[in-house]
Amino acid sequence: MGDTNKNVARMIYYALHALQHRGQEAAGICVHDGKSIHSYRGIGLVAEVFTETQIALLPGAVGIGHVRYPTSGAHTLENSQPILVKYRDKTIAVAHNGNLVNSGELRSELEGAGDIFSTTSDTEVIAHLLVKEIQRYDLADAVRAVMRRLVGSYSLAIMCNDTVIGLRDPLGIKPLCIGAIDDGIVVASESVAIDALNGRLIRDVAPGEMVVLRDGEMNCIRLVNSPRPAHCIFEYVYFARPDSIMDTKLIYDVRVNIGSILADEHPADADIVSPIPDSGITMAVGYHQRSGIRYKECLMKNRYVGRTFIMPDQSMREAAVRMKMNTIRPNIEGQRIVLVDDSIVRGTTSRRIVKMVKDAGAQKVHVRIGSPPIIAPCYLGIDMASRDELIAAHKTVAGVETVIDADSLGYVSLEGLIRAIGLPEDHFCTGCLTGIYPLDIPGERSMSSQRRLTDFPPNDGGG
Amino acid sequence: MGDTNKNVARMIYYALHALQHRGQEAAGICVHDGKSIHSYRGIGLVAEVFTETQIALLPGAVGIGHVRYPTSGAHTLENSQPILVKYRDKTIAVAHNGNLVNSGELRSELEGAGDIFSTTSDTEVIAHLLVKEIQRYDLADAVRAVMRRLVGSYSLAIMCNDTVIGLRDPLGIKPLCIGAIDDGIVVASESVAIDALNGRLIRDVAPGEMVVLRDGEMNCIRLVNSPRPAHCIFEYVYFARPDSIMDTKLIYDVRVNIGSILADEHPADADIVSPIPDSGITMAVGYHQRSGIRYKECLMKNRYVGRTFIMPDQSMREAAVRMKMNTIRPNIEGQRIVLVDDSIVRGTTSRRIVKMVKDAGAQKVHVRIGSPPIIAPCYLGIDMASRDELIAAHKTVAGVETVIDADSLGYVSLEGLIRAIGLPEDHFCTGCLTGIYPLDIPGERSMSSQRRLTDFPPNDGGG
Amino acid sequence: MGDTNKNVARMIYYALHALQHRGQEAAGICVHDGKSIHSYRGIGLVAEVFTETQIALLPGAVGIGHVRYPTSGAHTLENSQPILVKYRDKTIAVAHNGNLVNSGELRSELEGAGDIFSTTSDTEVIAHLLVKEIQRYDLADAVRAVMRRLVGSYSLAIMCNDTVIGLRDPLGIKPLCIGAIDDGIVVASESVAIDALNGRLIRDVAPGEMVVLRDGEMNCIRLVNSPRPAHCIFEYVYFARPDSIMDTKLIYDVRVNIGSILADEHPADADIVSPIPDSGITMAVGYHQRSGIRYKECLMKNRYVGRTFIMPDQSMREAAVRMKMNTIRPNIEGQRIVLVDDSIVRGTTSRRIVKMVKDAGAQKVHVRIGSPPIIAPCYLGIDMASRDELIAAHKTVAGVETVIDADSLGYVSLEGLIRAIGLPEDHFCTGCLTGIYPLDIPGERSMSSQRRLTDFPPNDGGG
Amino acid sequence: MGDTNKNVARMIYYALHALQHRGQEAAGICVHDGKSIHSYRGIGLVAEVFTETQIALLPGAVGIGHVRYPTSGAHTLENSQPILVKYRDKTIAVAHNGNLVNSGELRSELEGAGDIFSTTSDTEVIAHLLVKEIQRYDLADAVRAVMRRLVGSYSLAIMCNDTVIGLRDPLGIKPLCIGAIDDGIVVASESVAIDALNGRLIRDVAPGEMVVLRDGEMNCIRLVNSPRPAHCIFEYVYFARPDSIMDTKLIYDVRVNIGSILADEHPADADIVSPIPDSGITMAVGYHQRSGIRYKECLMKNRYVGRTFIMPDQSMREAAVRMKMNTIRPNIEGQRIVLVDDSIVRGTTSRRIVKMVKDAGAQKVHVRIGSPPIIAPCYLGIDMASRDELIAAHKTVAGVETVIDADSLGYVSLEGLIRAIGLPEDHFCTGCLTGIYPLDIPGERSMSSQRRLTDFPPNDGGG
Repeated sequence: MGDTNKNVARMIYYALHALQHRGQEAAGICVHDGKSIHSYRGIGLVAEVFTETQIALLPGAVGIGHVRYPTSGAHTLENSQPILVKYRDKTIAVAHNGNLVNSGELRSELEGAGDIFSTTSDTEVIAHLLVKEIQRYDLADAVRAVMRRLVGSYSLAIMCNDTVIGLRDPLGIKPLCIGAIDDGIVVASESVAIDALNGRLIRDVAPGEMVVLRDGEMNCIRLVNSPRPAHCIFEYVYFARPDSIMDTKLIYDVRVNIGSILADEHPADADIVSPIPDSGITMAVGYHQRSGIRYKECLMKNRYVGRTFIMPDQSMREAAVRMKMNTIRPNIEGQRIVLVDDSIVRGTTSRRIVKMVKDAGAQKVHVRIGSPPIIAPCYLGIDMASRDELIAAHKTVAGVETVIDADSLGYVSLEGLIRAIGLPEDHFCTGCLTGIYPLDIPGERSMSSQRRLTDFPPNDGGG
Repeated sequence: MGDTNKNVARMIYYALHALQHRGQEAAGICVHDGKSIHSYRGIGLVAEVFTETQIALLPGAVGIGHVRYPTSGAHTLENSQPILVKYRDKTIAVAHNGNLVNSGELRSELEGAGDIFSTTSDTEVIAHLLVKEIQRYDLADAVRAVMRRLVGSYSLAIMCNDTVIGLRDPLGIKPLCIGAIDDGIVVASESVAIDALNGRLIRDVAPGEMVVLRDGEMNCIRLVNSPRPAHCIFEYVYFARPDSIMDTKLIYDVRVNIGSILADEHPADADIVSPIPDSGITMAVGYHQRSGIRYKECLMKNRYVGRTFIMPDQSMREAAVRMKMNTIRPNIEGQRIVLVDDSIVRGTTSRRIVKMVKDAGAQKVHVRIGSPPIIAPCYLGIDMASRDELIAAHKTVAGVETVIDADSLGYVSLEGLIRAIGLPEDHFCTGCLTGIYPLDIPGERSMSSQRRLTDFPPNDGGG
Repeated sequence: MGDTNKNVARMIYYALHALQHRGQEAAGICVHDGKSIHSYRGIGLVAEVFTETQIALLPGAVGIGHVRYPTSGAHTLENSQPILVKYRDKTIAVAHNGNLVNSGELRSELEGAGDIFSTTSDTEVIAHLLVKEIQRYDLADAVRAVMRRLVGSYSLAIMCNDTVIGLRDPLGIKPLCIGAIDDGIVVASESVAIDALNGRLIRDVAPGEMVVLRDGEMNCIRLVNSPRPAHCIFEYVYFARPDSIMDTKLIYDVRVNIGSILADEHPADADIVSPIPDSGITMAVGYHQRSGIRYKECLMKNRYVGRTFIMPDQSMREAAVRMKMNTIRPNIEGQRIVLVDDSIVRGTTSRRIVKMVKDAGAQKVHVRIGSPPIIAPCYLGIDMASRDELIAAHKTVAGVETVIDADSLGYVSLEGLIRAIGLPEDHFCTGCLTGIYPLDIPGERSMSSQRRLTDFPPNDGGG
Repeated sequence: MGDTNKNVARMIYYALHALQHRGQEAAGICVHDGKSIHSYRGIGLVAEVFTETQIALLPGAVGIGHVRYPTSGAHTLENSQPILVKYRDKTIAVAHNGNLVNSGELRSELEGAGDIFSTTSDTEVIAHLLVKEIQRYDLADAVRAVMRRLVGSYSLAIMCNDTVIGLRDPLGIKPLCIGAIDDGIVVASESVAIDALNGRLIRDVAPGEMVVLRDGEMNCIRLVNSPRPAHCIFEYVYFARPDSIMDTKLIYDVRVNIGSILADEHPADADIVSPIPDSGITMAVGYHQRSGIRYKECLMKNRYVGRTFIMPDQSMREAAVRMKMNTIRPNIEGQRIVLVDDSIVRGTTSRRIVKMVKDAGAQKVHVRIGSPPIIAPCYLGIDMASRDELIAAHKTVAGVETVIDADSLGYVSLEGLIRAIGLPEDHFCTGCLTGIYPLDIPGERSMSSQRRLTDFPPNDGGG
């Protein structure tokens, strides 16, 4: 995120708040005040990490921010972002959404050349590569050189002294978009961050494109080309906010469409259709519209479960899910119910919810899922569980149905899902659903054709 | 809330968590361990106030808890509850939901008799009255004597040494219900607290009834009778959770019914119906079902706004509402939209939301409200604003329509609302909607007949 | 403490800070802004409880404050002071230094008359008595009436609406003094609080005297007379700061005198004299001066041990005392040492220190104590331990010498101590040293003559 | 600090606590549990940063710790220590006491070779050099190679995986010593850290010596030799604790000697000699012993001033020093007083104290200082102020006397100071007192002969 406004830390605070669903573990902001970089990071939600006092200690008209998604590693401050590195007269701050597949190799190679690291994060690897290339080349060539080395997903916000750069990987795996606000430009993971600043979405950052914000001006250059993009399909299913527009598609529409297609592919003889909140709500509305089955909520979520909530111990384990979600018993008793959710990962939560709904008196529980079965792990930025833990990696749909004790279980087809989104069918990363990845991942199958990166023809650049 | 389980503080913690929507200002728990009372209170949400350490310092098999609703006064710990008073060998803890109308008079009278207070709360007045009467009479007679003195709304949880008492005022203004859990009895404001403990709702506490929990046994006695109850009608419209059953009615059903009746009373020529989240969701579903107009969300709420969130300052005031709620622009552009909400208090928020939706490109915005106009203040426990601030106290519906800039505005009728609930029409307090109160309130009109309290015929008691 | 300055909370903060040694458990400030009372209390040191924000929320030109000494009871906020009680149009805040002997009786009697309490503290009893009498009499008569009822030690700061009152018990057990600052008057427990505000000590408050500060004016009235005072002798030995002047005597001088008299009464054949820091320092200087034995420190205190310090567990118990105090081994080896301390309570610490010093190579350790043996508990405000725990209550001096493993042990005589102070011999409470108390204490012996209180002749009052 | 005990984090905690006077800004501990390094750092005192929980999260039998002295830079967590760097299979943690003179050059050079940094601290420069050399050489040669590059003062605790290294710079500028505890070896800045663990001081680490602790064994190797050491003379005057033994000398004795020599060099016709607490106490005792002038304290320090203390604002500036120190007026009135302090830096505090003592009625105030005038800045680890701020850099003794308004002013001579310490006269760094430094410092004069470092003859090593 970058902007030429004076009180940019405050604006980044609001933008990060709008993106809070993308990471709740840690938050950080770096700004540049014309002379030097100021930075503050902490463990927790944006609103927990930053106080008025902290914001006031971050003067500057340009800056970047980050919310950290809890992937691997402990909750340590050291791995929080933006990561800062210093080199000669330059301080470079990097905020990274995504995951590198070859960070181990790159790190080894950099260490072979003598590089020393302060953290275990792949973001520091990117920062080191960048610092090196910037010594040799102009900015565009330096970034292009770095991109040639990186294998993985990476939407990046970089601040190099007072220049802010937005960068999207050549496959466009993770989202990134550009917006205009009153007196500046914003680059953000989702358009809701632009909305929060009362701005206007200009367009998505293209795969392989770099957006440079300097002295109040924006320059966009496509650096690297790939035969076709590989957008993470799970952003549409689950990760993004419904009110975001991502690669031209409104997530809300996509999810209504998914529900509608689910109703076609997996009809049910039922009295009501009910979402598992919050993720299943929009899909359930779509299912209801298409099927004509009455929409009625069976489960109510408690809005107040926070970080410090004391979860029930052994003696009350049954109650654990109840702290987060309650059944509306009279809506359930004697009913044949279609329960709609976005996905099944381990199956544990689905099983508990089906049990809760049956305990509340449901006659039948038909589970409908807005994604195909997840059969393989994600290496590109979504913390989905290992292959061992993924229930659909080891069981047929019938097997999963038995485990979660549903009267019927239907997953949307991959074709249906892609149709719901409305982008070309070969424009996605569907690794978790097919086991075939758009990048070479050791031990996994890849669409080897996809990663033939070429430099972008120079005449395509520009702002 | 009372229970005979060993780890009762932990259970009260979960129950309070389920009731968190009833008050976010402060939370407190008192327990009795067979010898003495232990108490802890703090400012903030239940999950913020209590840690494992605090819970561990509250040993005991019986107890009561409270979440404080921010009415008047500063956020001081002194006014948090349960309030404790000590008298000879007795320690009495009182948790109060509601508001006394005559607390000033009672306080003066008690002061006339020499009573000295530590707080400004009306709960301390109740505690003093109770202590006095308990010296003279047995428990039932003492509580009856206190009830004769109190004018106002009061659902009370009282702990007198190791006896826990639940008490509901003679008009049953505020809710109170009884549930059975594995090894004990719970009395709580809403049935969701019983659900959280995996318990079973037994029934509502009757107006004027006292529930005594002692040595693992429950005794119920109706102490005072009133010609008819006066349940707060706003609990159904707004305050209670949709998954609660209150005075035999499921709130979810009531709100669907309200939406349905709204559709009949105020149809609209529109493309979509959308709730103002969260309060309008269930009513919007009802409107959609009855009208056949497509259900589509136009507004998305940010789930992460917390206590410490830094709100935009003057220069970004427009953005304030945007931090909490975002428009889904593509769902809005060119559409004729029915926006459903539960109520309009000052009109400020409604005006801002209508503006946001119009700015996002709506062709028409028809506002539909699930309650009649609020024309008078609440003296009985809901912090609704003063008469001056209430927009409908000074303007006709057409006037409000103009102020909020809606293309049309329709409120459900009082008759429609009562029909949606399904209880007899004279069983409600409708003070805020009619200006006529079930109790004598200085300067206001009252249904004088209602408050002719009589002692309940002794043969009606029992457990 | 009272003052007519605008920013009085800030000044009280500094005064409390100077009095921090009198109580580290909790701190509180109440101020009056001309309209109402504002109050804030918290657990911890003054500097921990109050921030700039808290001070800013306490506007007012008059006020009182308190630091709480950890006597009995848990570290609960409820027992922190000033205690506030409300009665009709009056709010009365009371801060109390001392201990009532008859608070149980008074409480029962007040309860008999219907009084209800919020805490278990004797200060609330005083507040209740005061509220009652103020209804009936003018201020002087009301306070006199209260004093007739109280048996015990009590220096009080009272704020009744915007009037501040300082009051000292008829025996003057606890200290209280008056000072002038730039634009106001201060009443405080020790003169160092006046020094902290750059003020000038005017005089001690006389036993039985009331100081009234109102509208910038001071009025002093002696309300109750006693044949002679009974100043707590332990204030001189241990409790007060050396730089305070108390009942006309500089504590520093008193302690040098004690050391000097100790040297006469218990000379030693030694190479060096060393204090046990910090309490023994001034006495050791006196011993050195009188005896001519070289002053050399053998023990060094760590200044940084704070509230949250993690003390060694079982496996390192020996180290516990080492965390607070270190031996200076080269100053000790082969030396015959006089170790000077102010008192021995349980004997445990003395034993550990003698062992440490011997382990560090001392040839002889002669212990000299600046008070006579403590043979009886204190009922009047110093938390000294129960009779069971007091080593000198059960052992002769020779017995104590054996337990602490000193080569010789000498206590100053009571006569010597009184001579060191320089006030008449019958002007002290020496309960802990003699077992004879100036007040009737059930089960203890008393100087029954002393408590024949009479009203002070009216012509003695005035300011 | 290193040790083979199981609960080493806890022991490091106690050792750091004993060294708290060496740095109050931040504290950190790193331990190795046989597999990996665990680390925790925070802003504040040791007792504020670490809780039982934090200690429990630091398992391991070896470790190092650090307390940070507030030199330049903001109070940022990033500059706190130990600093961690990661390189291939090694994690290296470095804790540094001292200051590099050539860190800018080294940093540039490393950057020239491509090194990238995460902080602005010179400790990270040391860590990088070390990582590089360790790839090429065995440990002793690697460390020797690093030492050849470093110009400045550095006592280092290094942990390279599970090997702990203590290292003292070739001039021995900063202290470092070795101690034996029950089941292990400790290397620490001062012997009081060994005392805290009930250990026994073995000896000082020699200048240029490396101590290696691995698998419970200690190996000592002198790596680099210098013609003579250059111990920081200010450690003796002010910085070290009186109970430490440093380079074989007990600090307490040194300070008594200083006082004694001061009395010879600058006698005074006075009634009493009084320290400025705490730093002047031991010197004042020495002055008293030699001069025969009575020892009597005139100033009393408040022990409770902490980090969060609210200092007086403009309107009370006079009071600022009063918050920390109070005059004992009766000890001062009419007296001719010798005030003894360790040093004068800016003169501001001395002036305020002299004024306070005169305001309290002193007839004469003779100031005696236990160090020669500070005429030049320290580049080697003590935050003394810039040359501009140093009062004695610009004024004669008579000039300083006038500024601080003393009746006479006497500094101990450099010869006297060195005699008081008792080490050879050319074994010190006296840069701040003479302007001549033992190292080449750009723009300053140096004892150029001193820094002719040679490798230590190999037969001198050993343990």
